Amino acid sequence: MFLEESIGVLKRTPGALDALLRGLPDEWVRGTDGPDTWSPYDVIGHLSHGERTDWMPRLKIILEYGSERPFDPFDRVAQFNDGEPKTLAARLDEFASLRAANIELLSNLGIAEEHLELQGTHPAFGRVTMRQLLAAWTAHDLAHVVQIGRTMARRYRDEVGPWAEYLSVMR
Amino acid sequence: MFLEESIGVLKRTPGALDALLRGLPDEWVRGTDGPDTWSPYDVIGHLSHGERTDWMPRLKIILEYGSERPFDPFDRVAQFNDGEPKTLAARLDEFASLRAANIELLSNLGIAEEHLELQGTHPAFGRVTMRQLLAAWTAHDLAHVVQIGRTMARRYRDEVGPWAEYLSVMR
Repeated sequence: MFLEESIGVLKRTPGALDALLRGLPDEWVRGTDGPDTWSPYDVIGHLSHGERTDWMPRLKIILEYGSERPFDPFDRVAQFNDGEPKTLAARLDEFASLRAANIELLSNLGIAEEHLELQGTHPAFGRVTMRQLLAAWTAHDLAHVVQIGRTMARRYRDEVGPWAEYLSVMR
Repeated sequence: MFLEESIGVLKRTPGALDALLRGLPDEWVRGTDGPDTWSPYDVIGHLSHGERTDWMPRLKIILEYGSERPFDPFDRVAQFNDGEPKTLAARLDEFASLRAANIELLSNLGIAEEHLELQGTHPAFGRVTMRQLLAAWTAHDLAHVVQIGRTMARRYRDEVGPWAEYLSVMR
């Protein structure tokens, strides 16, 4: 079933990012891929904001109001205006805990196959389905796994010397 | 120090991929991004072959023979001619165990900053340094994290509907 398949990924992302990043030196964790790009640390903050204000709240709006009430716009750079600076470990803990609570909720909403066609109104795209929202939540996780891996790999763009030719991630 | 920084990533990759993939349904694990592309399952097999025949053996050749003896060519598709089919869990276990043994060895070779400039001979590139080899080993891990995340995300290319516009990984 589609919901379970998405949850399969959603519930694994925090652990995967934790295993990849926790305890690494700041050079890896705070490095970016150039001006206006995000470090792994920034990405984890962004994922937590998504848990709080994007995916699950939108799903609830669909369930409560259908397409009548448009979703609130999502602030994709909220992680840069986050008040108190947190350590990476605190951000990883926060993301894991927010995600676990959302998965718990999502699993208990009794969403059946037919609910996936319920519609909501995206502030930019207009009509979207719950199925598209769930797919986007899942793919968004994976897109940020890609971003983190790419940012880290590119730190070694010069270090790898001639191997850059074999590593398309460097281009 | 450069060696420790690389080891920081190298020792985390198996756990990160394990947390991302173990227990996921085959649709995620065995799916590819089109003809002649690799599934996450294929990638884990490739990483294990790299542990056995690529990175560490080449590092030992540098230490033993310097640039006199070229590295053996690496078979990057050996995971498709692997004998007995293995489960993903078995491949993850194998990768973790091969990597742990290599990290153990690498940490005990007494490699100091000055050894990083030792040279070897790559079958295609010619002269390379140990530092470049270590950087390439590390970046290669991250490149495959990227590949796995991208392959999985693109399974939902159509499912995400209009969100594809916000997800550059789909293009």
